[in-house]
Amino acid sequence: MVLAKVVGTVVSAHKEARLGGIKFLLLDKINPATMQGKNDYVVAIDGVGAGPGEVVFYVAGSSARLTAVTDGKPTDATIVAIVDNIEIRGEYVYRKDGQ
Amino acid sequence: MVLAKVVGTVVSAHKEARLGGIKFLLLDKINPATMQGKNDYVVAIDGVGAGPGEVVFYVAGSSARLTAVTDGKPTDATIVAIVDNIEIRGEYVYRKDGQ
Amino acid sequence: MVLAKVVGTVVSAHKEARLGGIKFLLLDKINPATMQGKNDYVVAIDGVGAGPGEVVFYVAGSSARLTAVTDGKPTDATIVAIVDNIEIRGEYVYRKDGQ
Amino acid sequence: MVLAKVVGTVVSAHKEARLGGIKFLLLDKINPATMQGKNDYVVAIDGVGAGPGEVVFYVAGSSARLTAVTDGKPTDATIVAIVDNIEIRGEYVYRKDGQ
Amino acid sequence: MVLAKVVGTVVSAHKEARLGGIKFLLLDKINPATMQGKNDYVVAIDGVGAGPGEVVFYVAGSSARLTAVTDGKPTDATIVAIVDNIEIRGEYVYRKDGQ
Repeated sequence: MVLAKVVGTVVSAHKEARLGGIKFLLLDKINPATMQGKNDYVVAIDGVGAGPGEVVFYVAGSSARLTAVTDGKPTDATIVAIVDNIEIRGEYVYRKDGQ
Repeated sequence: MVLAKVVGTVVSAHKEARLGGIKFLLLDKINPATMQGKNDYVVAIDGVGAGPGEVVFYVAGSSARLTAVTDGKPTDATIVAIVDNIEIRGEYVYRKDGQ
Repeated sequence: MVLAKVVGTVVSAHKEARLGGIKFLLLDKINPATMQGKNDYVVAIDGVGAGPGEVVFYVAGSSARLTAVTDGKPTDATIVAIVDNIEIRGEYVYRKDGQ
Repeated sequence: MVLAKVVGTVVSAHKEARLGGIKFLLLDKINPATMQGKNDYVVAIDGVGAGPGEVVFYVAGSSARLTAVTDGKPTDATIVAIVDNIEIRGEYVYRKDGQ
Repeated sequence: MVLAKVVGTVVSAHKEARLGGIKFLLLDKINPATMQGKNDYVVAIDGVGAGPGEVVFYVAGSSARLTAVTDGKPTDATIVAIVDNIEIRGEYVYRKDGQ
């Protein structure tokens, strides 16, 4: 799975029928060592109610269809978790509560 | 899913039988932060009636087969949405109506 | 799908049984804006009778198995079309007949 | 499969239901010729009880679901082995016991 | 499929049960135009009895499971052929017999 930040939204009125009613979020992948965005974007379906600015991870490939929201849908990137904290070598590099 | 612009077409008379009657569009992936093309091209099947110059996103991998147009076909990239607008951190970076 | 040029062949006497009798072509991916090779090679199964020097596109991933030649075979890259012409922004960048 | 080192953990209280009770490890891919990290991170599900600092390899794509821990779950990266040693051209470049 | 050279082995006593008894080879991808390694490594399951120093190609993704050795196993890279020769634009760039 890939760590990313929710940076925006993508809106489409004209889309494949199986994607009707789906919300698309724009993600920027992040390097957890620095928590900076990589300027490397992906459009993902939100499977967990993520909001702008949140750090998430998404699943790519065929597994992107294995969530309650995306079953049978043509997706290759689905957000499966909102991240609370990331620890590297015993140190927090990210804590959602900001402490 | 990946943001891209429709920049052209690819025509083939001699192709796998299951791709008969299919139209192939040439896409250039875009960086939504700048809306510039990346000079990184992919041939995609059009699942939504996209036209030249339009911003779209396509789905890659096995999910590319999960559209009305591509069911059971050997595709790894299918356009599933024509984009109306893209918003990053509360600002529109793209609006199809150009306003 | 990915645009490439057929640049050679790869021969193997000792291979997985399900690949018996299969011909392997060596492809160099191309940038259609310049029609130059990228020096980025892939070994592909030929599903359409492509020959040396021809511009083709191949399908990657699980869809590579969905052709008459490759059904059930362990392939991740199968040529599915010989390209006749490529047009970018209204201009031909490639025409097989060379005109 | 891809060689990587376990460098940390990612914690999420709010995630896709099918991922409940799953532990997520943060991996940094390594170059076995130097055994250095590539500063290229992935979030993986642990299928083998790996711990911090251990060298592992993980499987990507749909095969990431084919383990006892991940069957039917939306994962694209699952650790399938803790590495004991790596040998390149007859020389050990890594031995877990450090000798 | 991807051309690579067998450069070593990876040994693991502690691994996913379905991988028991499997031998893992370390491959370095090669550029066939120069036959040099790319310093880009992958751990692959051997489906054809390849040995150190041999040039092979492996299949990635779900097709890596479609060999006699890997059926149903969590692999994303399986060697499916030992290469005898590679020809580019009518010239041999590699012949296993070294002539």
